[in-house]
Amino acid sequence: MSSMINKNSQSFLYQQVVDLIQTMQSSGALRSGDKLPSLRKLSHQLNISIPTVKQAYIELERLGKVEARPKSGYFLKAVESLFNSPKRASFVRRPVAVRCQSLVEQCYQAVHAPNSLQLGTSHPVMANPPDKALARIMRRVLAQQGPKAMLYGPMDGYLPLKQQLAQRYLQQGIDAMPDDIIITNGAQEALAIALQSVAKSGDIIAVESPTYFGILELIENLGMMALEIPTCSNAGICLEDLQHSLDSHDVKACIFSSLINNPTGSLMTTEKRRRIVDIIESRNIPLIEDAVYGELHFSQTIELPMQAYSTKGLVITCSSFSKTAAPSYRVGWILSNRYEEKAKGLKRALSCSTSLLNQMVIYEFVRSGDYDRHLKRLIQVLRVNKERMLAVIARHFPENTCLSNPQGGGVIWLELPVGCDVIDLFRKSVEAGISITPGVLFSATGKYKRCARISYGLPWDARVEQAIEQLGVFAGELLNEQCVTTH
Amino acid sequence: MSSMINKNSQSFLYQQVVDLIQTMQSSGALRSGDKLPSLRKLSHQLNISIPTVKQAYIELERLGKVEARPKSGYFLKAVESLFNSPKRASFVRRPVAVRCQSLVEQCYQAVHAPNSLQLGTSHPVMANPPDKALARIMRRVLAQQGPKAMLYGPMDGYLPLKQQLAQRYLQQGIDAMPDDIIITNGAQEALAIALQSVAKSGDIIAVESPTYFGILELIENLGMMALEIPTCSNAGICLEDLQHSLDSHDVKACIFSSLINNPTGSLMTTEKRRRIVDIIESRNIPLIEDAVYGELHFSQTIELPMQAYSTKGLVITCSSFSKTAAPSYRVGWILSNRYEEKAKGLKRALSCSTSLLNQMVIYEFVRSGDYDRHLKRLIQVLRVNKERMLAVIARHFPENTCLSNPQGGGVIWLELPVGCDVIDLFRKSVEAGISITPGVLFSATGKYKRCARISYGLPWDARVEQAIEQLGVFAGELLNEQCVTTH
Repeated sequence: MSSMINKNSQSFLYQQVVDLIQTMQSSGALRSGDKLPSLRKLSHQLNISIPTVKQAYIELERLGKVEARPKSGYFLKAVESLFNSPKRASFVRRPVAVRCQSLVEQCYQAVHAPNSLQLGTSHPVMANPPDKALARIMRRVLAQQGPKAMLYGPMDGYLPLKQQLAQRYLQQGIDAMPDDIIITNGAQEALAIALQSVAKSGDIIAVESPTYFGILELIENLGMMALEIPTCSNAGICLEDLQHSLDSHDVKACIFSSLINNPTGSLMTTEKRRRIVDIIESRNIPLIEDAVYGELHFSQTIELPMQAYSTKGLVITCSSFSKTAAPSYRVGWILSNRYEEKAKGLKRALSCSTSLLNQMVIYEFVRSGDYDRHLKRLIQVLRVNKERMLAVIARHFPENTCLSNPQGGGVIWLELPVGCDVIDLFRKSVEAGISITPGVLFSATGKYKRCARISYGLPWDARVEQAIEQLGVFAGELLNEQCVTTH
Repeated sequence: MSSMINKNSQSFLYQQVVDLIQTMQSSGALRSGDKLPSLRKLSHQLNISIPTVKQAYIELERLGKVEARPKSGYFLKAVESLFNSPKRASFVRRPVAVRCQSLVEQCYQAVHAPNSLQLGTSHPVMANPPDKALARIMRRVLAQQGPKAMLYGPMDGYLPLKQQLAQRYLQQGIDAMPDDIIITNGAQEALAIALQSVAKSGDIIAVESPTYFGILELIENLGMMALEIPTCSNAGICLEDLQHSLDSHDVKACIFSSLINNPTGSLMTTEKRRRIVDIIESRNIPLIEDAVYGELHFSQTIELPMQAYSTKGLVITCSSFSKTAAPSYRVGWILSNRYEEKAKGLKRALSCSTSLLNQMVIYEFVRSGDYDRHLKRLIQVLRVNKERMLAVIARHFPENTCLSNPQGGGVIWLELPVGCDVIDLFRKSVEAGISITPGVLFSATGKYKRCARISYGLPWDARVEQAIEQLGVFAGELLNEQCVTTH
């Protein structure tokens, strides 16, 4: 067996071991679920050092080919976990949305492909993840609560957490009582509850354009209609367009981002936020604000959600800890104002309650002050990342590429020069193990074909820079191909 | 103890042993659910032969007083002869809009009142909570995954967990691929997704009566109509009523419990489950089965969910780990069959994804075999608790109280004598720090006013016994008040 390793080869020894294991798997000599030889045994058999074998196993694990099981060793993973099966076509009522949904699915597949570099997901907290702090709190909660941490939580949320949130609103001058808050499975559930509290199938819902695709999916799945209000990538919603739209259509509700728009990263002025609330409340239309990036703005001044300017109680605020603490905890909330009863009934009916254990951990994170300290640091890291990302894109992307200048959050919105279709860039980048989000997802009417959303909310390293460079090269190739075709 | 046996008596020795056991039971020295002494031990204590003791035990078994459990010994059964099963309610045979929210809210408040004894919640796993095993796994997952445990999970669930579930279905002969399964925030979200995959506002949904109030709340919140199908508290759905209802109304979907009904605990025969699927699929109506108690049945034979009998792919199975592992983790799933695409879209739109961290922990719990070992033990504990609960109720509740005889799960359904309104019992018990669930919650048409659901799914101790005794005293008082008022 040791003859399979060539110490004089140019290839690293550990890489040869990786290749050897993969060859044995494809030949059937090793099969899915088989345990790999121990480090010691293989080191002896191949006459190489234990650390080399170890390095090979770690690389195989990174590649998603093997899994390490504590105190048991390394095992070849089942083949099905390495592949996604081909998807059937979507089943959707409106032709315009079919493309949207199946593309969303492709994007998610790309995001969750093993080892893909996730520039397509917006989880800015990953730029500076508080995993150690949360793990420490989790261990303490488990030890202190015992079986109590296993129980169903109250339907509308863990009271101490609701109290913390109410207090934070109070500090912003927003009059919220703990009872006004419902804890949800992330902001997406908050949005789903909010929308079903104020509108029904067939109703027209006004949204920003571009807007977060999860809002469009929600509207689609509830059988409602989206009415797009143009926004400026740096200044937010155009007030005249908003008024014109509300004049022309029987809009039943609006869903707007509260502070930082996803995907553009724009931050509207205080005056504009106030005017929007005035316009909408004067017409007695409920306004659902998506505030998930609200605490991640780069402004030096205090920026309040639109809830702060409500005088009629028609503003519903939806937010979560997914962008600021941990997406995997699925802890969000809704401040539902005059729709409280309806929202509470919907929460119970749609998912019963939110993970009590996760709420307990998030509560401790907030209560201890760790959360605020972490937020401060996270914003610093995101600001730096943003500057780096803008610089690298500027260096490597084709001339005439347009970029938003995010005022917070963790994503950049870019527009390629005429002639490029971002779907092609998306396909190429997926093949190269890089996920991005195509612009068409952010519209219900097929807009933004030349746009893409790219995340800088991840730890900055050479791999990220290389990926951006690679994307720039792909974009250039697409532009050249286009020129060849056209001329 | 041997003096209790008179070898000179005219009565057979084995008959004296039978009488002795029954006396000890009625005096409270032996209690329902208790294990009888081994043959050898009792033979020694009473100074009689082992075959005589054996004969006595066989006679007690014949009389329905004890049950033999393979490899475990003999156990005292509850004194069922005292009870009749709750009567089937008379039916308004038309679909109705559901209105039950405010009472549900009061119940939940009672359940979450500090220090209340939770006889009103169904979380049978709390009878034998695996909190230590789960905490151990959680610590390991956090240490191994680091920041990766913070990420969004794939929209339709953590693949290794879906693979485990698919494998478990396969072992039951149900052809499910990992891709057919969507992980949800508990079974309630699974039901919400299932129902919205097959029906819309205004549609008629057939449900069992009594049925789990969460299903009625869901129907209400989605603006649908409930059509109640009478069920027998010991035999489940009446097939004739089902056929008649489907003949008379344009039923768009059915939601039935798959194996163990909540609140009665009844288990339908295999033949009946098969017939139900035949009836419903022959009419091309989708059947949503709520299988949350499916793994907690007391039957010695294999019992399959209705999915197993589907030939047309119209059965959607909803289940979760909330009843069997940990409610607070909010990990459930849906096996959506031909509605897969619609269900996946709804999952994304309604809550994005399910807690990746919690899925990772549940996956390890199942994969390691700990889950199956825990389930086995949990079922044993629940069986014993059930017998104890039946016996204590028999001792303390008014004559003519009717009880279901649950074949699994963790709740008993009881009916008080004519003259009692369970809402009064509920109010008194809440004041005394005991939560129960009033029967009216389990109907959309105001039935079951004399019924209540009481949970035996918690660690059995003196506090539980005293609470049941207290409830019995309250029920007696209500009955007396009623007599005083009437006469």
